[in-house]
Amino acid sequence: MHNPQLNKNGELQHLLTIEGLPKPILNHILDTASSFVGVSDREVKKVPLMRGKSVFNLFFENSTRTRTTFEIAAKRLSADVINLNISASSASKGESLLDTIDNLAAMQADMFVVRHSQSGAPHLIAAHLSRINQHHVHVVNAGDGRHAHPTQGLLDMYTIRHYKKDFSQLTVAIVGDILHSRVARSDIHALTTLGVPEIRAIGPLTLLPGSLEQMGVRIFTDINEGLKGVDVIIMLRLQNERMNGGLLPSAQEYFKSYGLTPERLALAKPDAIVMHPGPMNRGVEIDSAVADGTQAVILPQVTFGIAVRMAVMGILAGN
Amino acid sequence: MHNPQLNKNGELQHLLTIEGLPKPILNHILDTASSFVGVSDREVKKVPLMRGKSVFNLFFENSTRTRTTFEIAAKRLSADVINLNISASSASKGESLLDTIDNLAAMQADMFVVRHSQSGAPHLIAAHLSRINQHHVHVVNAGDGRHAHPTQGLLDMYTIRHYKKDFSQLTVAIVGDILHSRVARSDIHALTTLGVPEIRAIGPLTLLPGSLEQMGVRIFTDINEGLKGVDVIIMLRLQNERMNGGLLPSAQEYFKSYGLTPERLALAKPDAIVMHPGPMNRGVEIDSAVADGTQAVILPQVTFGIAVRMAVMGILAGN
Amino acid sequence: MHNPQLNKNGELQHLLTIEGLPKPILNHILDTASSFVGVSDREVKKVPLMRGKSVFNLFFENSTRTRTTFEIAAKRLSADVINLNISASSASKGESLLDTIDNLAAMQADMFVVRHSQSGAPHLIAAHLSRINQHHVHVVNAGDGRHAHPTQGLLDMYTIRHYKKDFSQLTVAIVGDILHSRVARSDIHALTTLGVPEIRAIGPLTLLPGSLEQMGVRIFTDINEGLKGVDVIIMLRLQNERMNGGLLPSAQEYFKSYGLTPERLALAKPDAIVMHPGPMNRGVEIDSAVADGTQAVILPQVTFGIAVRMAVMGILAGN
Repeated sequence: MHNPQLNKNGELQHLLTIEGLPKPILNHILDTASSFVGVSDREVKKVPLMRGKSVFNLFFENSTRTRTTFEIAAKRLSADVINLNISASSASKGESLLDTIDNLAAMQADMFVVRHSQSGAPHLIAAHLSRINQHHVHVVNAGDGRHAHPTQGLLDMYTIRHYKKDFSQLTVAIVGDILHSRVARSDIHALTTLGVPEIRAIGPLTLLPGSLEQMGVRIFTDINEGLKGVDVIIMLRLQNERMNGGLLPSAQEYFKSYGLTPERLALAKPDAIVMHPGPMNRGVEIDSAVADGTQAVILPQVTFGIAVRMAVMGILAGN
Repeated sequence: MHNPQLNKNGELQHLLTIEGLPKPILNHILDTASSFVGVSDREVKKVPLMRGKSVFNLFFENSTRTRTTFEIAAKRLSADVINLNISASSASKGESLLDTIDNLAAMQADMFVVRHSQSGAPHLIAAHLSRINQHHVHVVNAGDGRHAHPTQGLLDMYTIRHYKKDFSQLTVAIVGDILHSRVARSDIHALTTLGVPEIRAIGPLTLLPGSLEQMGVRIFTDINEGLKGVDVIIMLRLQNERMNGGLLPSAQEYFKSYGLTPERLALAKPDAIVMHPGPMNRGVEIDSAVADGTQAVILPQVTFGIAVRMAVMGILAGN
Repeated sequence: MHNPQLNKNGELQHLLTIEGLPKPILNHILDTASSFVGVSDREVKKVPLMRGKSVFNLFFENSTRTRTTFEIAAKRLSADVINLNISASSASKGESLLDTIDNLAAMQADMFVVRHSQSGAPHLIAAHLSRINQHHVHVVNAGDGRHAHPTQGLLDMYTIRHYKKDFSQLTVAIVGDILHSRVARSDIHALTTLGVPEIRAIGPLTLLPGSLEQMGVRIFTDINEGLKGVDVIIMLRLQNERMNGGLLPSAQEYFKSYGLTPERLALAKPDAIVMHPGPMNRGVEIDSAVADGTQAVILPQVTFGIAVRMAVMGILAGN
């Protein structure tokens, strides 16, 4: 089956999802990111890789944090960045998504970074660009509905590789609202491809999708059981709206059952690392003592995230 | 009478309206645009013509699409671009338009790209800049009320010239809500100056201004009559608010009477081109089969629009 | 006592307030600004001093005008600028201010330009950056609550020095709502440090803070008395909300008692200059005849403001 993310030479054409991405491509992105980590430490944090290229941040859903990381990454690659908050503009004039894309492609865009509340929107855009023969435009999924958040998944992999070197001996636990989490989905696909032997999902049954076991993930509803002996803990952000929706009792109740406290962290391996995609709800899914503790690598994740996004954009622009 | 758009050497000082612009200046803009069409195809889509110049996008009325085209054009000329959504800022602090302009000019602005819901606002700004001896600041009208949208008019001319080469033998039809359309006004002035022998306006009488005949435009209320034998069809966007205002029955009714269908298009010359300033209301003023058909040049208009805006900005910055 | 704005070599690490800044540092900023005034007059208004540096405009309170001046200043220093309107983003996701700062610092920011409605917010951020050992990130206060607006104070000093050369013989009057004005506070500290022998505060008693006399400021409730023989008049903007709050009767009443008219201006020295931080309320605190008159230096203030902000950012980035 043809992978819509790859061009006819098997190179990355778009980054839509980690699902189905071959291991060599994942490793290529991580290796490239490694070379960019140094750039942001330099006096002049810029490389001319995308000079004169036009990157459009198409945010159909507001996310200043994610938009900022892509904007910095693109500017450090010397690209021209244009931010478009689409919900506020053409959408209100009744223009269709694909007419908007046609227009922006006609402006000789080089890259669309797409954030959308609907799963599949970046795929739709990529498929459309192929249909209209705009092969020079690359699409990066910056989060679509519940589906995928591939650059977050990649920066999580970069972080794990940085601290643990080898994926092949690890036990990784993902804790929280896996049902609604595009981060969890992207992480599970990446961890599987990179050869992690044991992936665990920890959370209340109402927030664990049925598909997890088919994906080879071990399910735990008891966090104390699930954290035993793990090397990596990936905490997920609890969306407040879940509480209102009746899927969960209250933030306090959730913290009592699934919040990561120092006591629970002590159940993991002594050198286990704690990750979180941010923004954190302190006192809901994670105790401040853990968030600010020595095992937390939450801020390095952010730093690596810029390098990973530079790598993805740089690789796409070069293909 | 002195033309406020020209400096004392007869060169373009501001672009406020196409009305009264001499033919050599129109041709100079189109010729310059022609040299920029190639820039956007290059690996590095940038020329250093406006390096270190400060371009302010002053949008007193929201229009992400138009703002984006000017932002890209300015960045491809290497200018620094500052976007100001004025309605949301000083205006709310009660500062007058001209005080705002004084301030921005004092910041050593080089160019104001002005979008305003009131006709004449860019003229007012240009006249004020002249009065306060800020001759180094250039104004580009990016659409003012019902009055003018000169860069849209120019890109329409570029498109027609690209496909038809010679203006002197053409019949051009403009279809739709001409009464409220700054695009139509700008197009009619440009077509007249460039020597198009026959300009037709097609639409319901309620949407055709009385001044058309004085401008030498032939009026048709029957679209089938109006399209016969034309070389160029310029469709206008139907503003939804017209329907509510009682000027028009319904979108469906409008489409039945004035929508451009393949059958109606067949009444024009076989090689007629179809233009639209976007965003399109598919199924209201234009059938999707026409919008996506082989005679539509709607997306090339967008591409040429970037080059035309680069040309206008580059010429102004050089004068 | 350690000054949190200075690094261990006594150089400027952050610009948080003018209070406590040594005179040599003030003079160094003004001298540096002087060299930048010329840059904005050049064909290419850019110097490469901050090429590849990432400047974040963190505006927790909307102020397009101030944000614009910092954005232009940073771009003329060749920095990459990222605008963040924080109220609209993470804050709504419940992330704490310091978590936001941690995240942005982890993106290898070089400078935060901070505007906040709460006094002390930039200090809090600077102290936090020091605590987490992010010494490479500099903070510039772009206005915090009623506390300070140091770049406005500095540009006011630049303006006075430009027109009056020597501070040591001057009488300077500040007129208006001094109680709520961060500009007034910053000006008083700067004037005092630079050796101005007589500073006067003019306004209704309800708008004059009790601390003024301890700061060595002479108080006048009668504007005609206060303006006699002064060299410099700094008008303050009257916030409309003061009128609603009951501290003042009406705008008309205020103008009658404290508005700067040509007649009142005539009480000052014949070569006195009139300053205003903008945006002006014409007919409330200042008569248009004065605002547009020959003694007003309100627009030169804006021009100098860009140079002063370039100086501050350039000096910080170099330390």
